[in-house]
Amino acid sequence: MTDAADIIARYWAHCDAREWDQFGRLVAEDVVYEVPQSRERIRGRDTYVEFNRTYPGDWRIAVERITADDRHGVSWTSFLVDGTTQTGLCFFDLGDAGLITHITDFWPEPFEPPPGREHLTERY
Amino acid sequence: MTDAADIIARYWAHCDAREWDQFGRLVAEDVVYEVPQSRERIRGRDTYVEFNRTYPGDWRIAVERITADDRHGVSWTSFLVDGTTQTGLCFFDLGDAGLITHITDFWPEPFEPPPGREHLTERY
Repeated sequence: MTDAADIIARYWAHCDAREWDQFGRLVAEDVVYEVPQSRERIRGRDTYVEFNRTYPGDWRIAVERITADDRHGVSWTSFLVDGTTQTGLCFFDLGDAGLITHITDFWPEPFEPPPGREHLTERY
Repeated sequence: MTDAADIIARYWAHCDAREWDQFGRLVAEDVVYEVPQSRERIRGRDTYVEFNRTYPGDWRIAVERITADDRHGVSWTSFLVDGTTQTGLCFFDLGDAGLITHITDFWPEPFEPPPGREHLTERY
């Protein structure tokens, strides 16, 4: 496991456990978090921890996959809340100090298959 | 660059160039492609190449990022078609033969920010 993969695994473990001090120590003081789909951005460790700490719902996080090299990593997680499961895909950058400096967060939603490819696909 | 990162880079280069023979040689004969959002699945190299070869529109692919370890990789691409840009996120598994055996493809769409976090976020 690369250092980045280990840091991302700890990030999600602390998040799921609501261990906000330990969670916060994994991100840089000037961490930037972005959601390209809503064009939202959060700057700074304190605000970012607060965003997670106050995220609504009695949610749990299950890590499906972490893929990382030395300085970048990607997590695929299941976000479980109110009997539903959403997929979260996060791209992480790590800085020189081994802290997470940038997170890009995607939330793909279900959609109906486009027409015209039924002859090539099956449904599951 | 890991072998997986190199294979994924070649996969997208051949796809963008419509070099379908070379593209097909990067995936296993029994490759499985899945789109969790639409619950579509494609099985097999020939069908998978045909799916890509006949994908509608005069599209181009720009690779934004590839993150990979030895046997897994993730690509973040921009899919440019008809003056619009869509984000594509693909998770790849590689098999013993160094070929791509499984692809999971996500297409996150824009959404409006949920209420209640305006005090923590900026828009961009």
